[in-house]
Amino acid sequence: MKLVRQLSTADAGFDAEFERLRFWSAADDAAIEARVAEILADVQQRGDAAVLDYTARFDRVKADSVGALEITQADLQAALAAIPSAQRDALEAAAKRVRTYHERQLQACGLSWSYRDDDGNLLGQKVTPLDRVGIYVPGGKAAYPSSVLMNAIPAHVAGVGEIIMVVPTPDGVRNPLVLAAAAVAGVHRVFTIGGAQAVAALAYGTATIPRVDKITGPGNAYVASAKKHVFGQVGIDMIAGPSEILVIADGTTPPDWVAMDLFSQAEHDELAQSILLSPDAAFLDAVSASMDRLVQEMPREAVIRASLAGRGALILTRSMEEACEISNRIAPEHLEISAADPQRWEPLLRHAGAIFMGAYTSESLGDYCAGPNHVLPTAGTARFSSPLGVYDFQKRSSLIEVSAEGAQALGRIASTLAHGEGLQAHARAAELRLR
Amino acid sequence: MKLVRQLSTADAGFDAEFERLRFWSAADDAAIEARVAEILADVQQRGDAAVLDYTARFDRVKADSVGALEITQADLQAALAAIPSAQRDALEAAAKRVRTYHERQLQACGLSWSYRDDDGNLLGQKVTPLDRVGIYVPGGKAAYPSSVLMNAIPAHVAGVGEIIMVVPTPDGVRNPLVLAAAAVAGVHRVFTIGGAQAVAALAYGTATIPRVDKITGPGNAYVASAKKHVFGQVGIDMIAGPSEILVIADGTTPPDWVAMDLFSQAEHDELAQSILLSPDAAFLDAVSASMDRLVQEMPREAVIRASLAGRGALILTRSMEEACEISNRIAPEHLEISAADPQRWEPLLRHAGAIFMGAYTSESLGDYCAGPNHVLPTAGTARFSSPLGVYDFQKRSSLIEVSAEGAQALGRIASTLAHGEGLQAHARAAELRLR
Repeated sequence: MKLVRQLSTADAGFDAEFERLRFWSAADDAAIEARVAEILADVQQRGDAAVLDYTARFDRVKADSVGALEITQADLQAALAAIPSAQRDALEAAAKRVRTYHERQLQACGLSWSYRDDDGNLLGQKVTPLDRVGIYVPGGKAAYPSSVLMNAIPAHVAGVGEIIMVVPTPDGVRNPLVLAAAAVAGVHRVFTIGGAQAVAALAYGTATIPRVDKITGPGNAYVASAKKHVFGQVGIDMIAGPSEILVIADGTTPPDWVAMDLFSQAEHDELAQSILLSPDAAFLDAVSASMDRLVQEMPREAVIRASLAGRGALILTRSMEEACEISNRIAPEHLEISAADPQRWEPLLRHAGAIFMGAYTSESLGDYCAGPNHVLPTAGTARFSSPLGVYDFQKRSSLIEVSAEGAQALGRIASTLAHGEGLQAHARAAELRLR
Repeated sequence: MKLVRQLSTADAGFDAEFERLRFWSAADDAAIEARVAEILADVQQRGDAAVLDYTARFDRVKADSVGALEITQADLQAALAAIPSAQRDALEAAAKRVRTYHERQLQACGLSWSYRDDDGNLLGQKVTPLDRVGIYVPGGKAAYPSSVLMNAIPAHVAGVGEIIMVVPTPDGVRNPLVLAAAAVAGVHRVFTIGGAQAVAALAYGTATIPRVDKITGPGNAYVASAKKHVFGQVGIDMIAGPSEILVIADGTTPPDWVAMDLFSQAEHDELAQSILLSPDAAFLDAVSASMDRLVQEMPREAVIRASLAGRGALILTRSMEEACEISNRIAPEHLEISAADPQRWEPLLRHAGAIFMGAYTSESLGDYCAGPNHVLPTAGTARFSSPLGVYDFQKRSSLIEVSAEGAQALGRIASTLAHGEGLQAHARAAELRLR
């Protein structure tokens, strides 16, 4: 039996089958939400004591004080010094590229601007970094050092005053690569706490853990629920769904390369989604054969099989144009244009977290070190949201300085509209400035 | 009795009193949330039929079809033609200035960019407009035509394909200024529906109302709860709290002007907050006297009195610098620097939705026609969020094109890090591109 189903857009039942494959819903779990609401309220009331209790209960880590759960900068540097030099070099090289890209982003879209109009009024926008942010890093099997870089470096480039990382350490086991990454990324403080209690501590502050202005980073269902709950009190990034890749191929890429790119998404977890679209039927067959052969060499074979069986597909399209249309319907997190002339197809693609162009651009290069962020909108949210970036760690203030001259012209307009809305004090405030 | 309390930062109990005044909490109302969840589920299931039922029940507007609740472009143009010419001129002048400012914003921070690094890799970000957005406009007393301009024009400038406005019309009463503003702002379609049912229709789509990608605009507690609920399914803007103004004055502005600026916030509603900070005690007394005198002329006197009694304050500070520090603690929605040299103080101010500089720059000029947006972060959320802008109606996609050369250097880094994370397919995908 083939590892992954093949479909054709020409099939009678294609649309229904495709909808079924795509379906994913962040089911709101009422039990989780109720439990999270309790934890949040408890941390808000009891502060450090509640954080200690939950950390002892859920992570089996006992401490006398939350201060004892902090990892010092010296410990972070020690972790960096202790890992193999190849890993250290790779972390530092990746961090450098990620930093360079985000510095370009700051220059391109993160600077203050202003202008004066003909009446001498100054108008503009002042861009400033957030004072303090919290970065949630999952513990256990999904503890990815690359995610530390991808969350902390944009914050650093934005000029955030203090970056506080929380990472649960179940049974007290610390991941040295994660700590090394925190050292490389310039994280200011690290606490070994997690779950809803960590989100609460960051959102409300405790005696030991300072309140932050925004919380980013992925987590389990409890963390996601807690982030959604504190949204408004603090800023949050998007709630992430399962990871997904869509490859549009014209048939010119070696089939093994495309097969492995599909695997690299499927190996994340059983709900991850890997889809290939191509107008070349023979190429789909070749990729399918590559997958059947290569999967046997994969240490995470079982996860890959489950993911592909549940949500994977190789889809024959009528044309490259139709493949682009389908991609726009999906708004994929990762989109590879594995084609000889990717620049030809890129303008047709309206929604995607990241677009990887050309056969050499495997998603994995982007995941680790090309420079752009790997925190991307999932589950179709690329229709309205963006990769994590420097802009997520900045905010803007409008700047308005109206001249005596300008107040005459603007005052008359404002007065008329304010009276129209029945807001007479608004009108009078404008009228008082008229000569 | 004085209209508004006076405090001094030198008072023993200042911090506690100030905290008490500042306190506001978006109390989660479980009854509202449960009701909203029902309405959302019903609209998701029954579509148009549910929308018609709720519109008949809550707004007392009966229609045979949702199509009958749509206001045509011809009707919008007729509304524009029918209003007094002074109002039409003011609307058009305001729209022109708002459009110009947001076009500058697009140029300053809303364009695609890319660069090639030394290995010939292309890196960048593609910025694209949202396909379709929904704008919620409240009905009844808080139906502000200026808000139609402030929501629709940035969407228009961003290049959004379709702007759909919903506005409830209780008892079938339409606000002609709101419809005229929709015509001026270039809204594409208008439906006379409101409440949680309108948010649901926009978020999920019905047979008649197309699904949108993002919903912006203010509303009552039901609308706010519905927006928070559908967040993730669609994008939303910030949930708004009560409006607030903070004035920092050096004593050089005519006291009547400052008094009226404080009123123009207080007249919104009883929870609105107006605060004046100044190191000049005589000036505070003069403003207080102005307020006591001027309030009697105000048509919305009762609301102003209630708002100032509950949440207003004139605060004596030790210095202008201390006033700026207090402002940073508040992160006000509207911040006036009513001083002879506002440029001196502006750099000290880190958090604010909008900064109005100099005596001539009344907040009301910004509310209507200076150009910047009047949808601003409230309740301290200026710590981490920004005015509504063109960027809210765009999203970004990372662009990565790795050259054959680049894949060699990047592949080795990615492979090392992927193995470190136990993601072997990621590593293999990079390694396959190595020569």
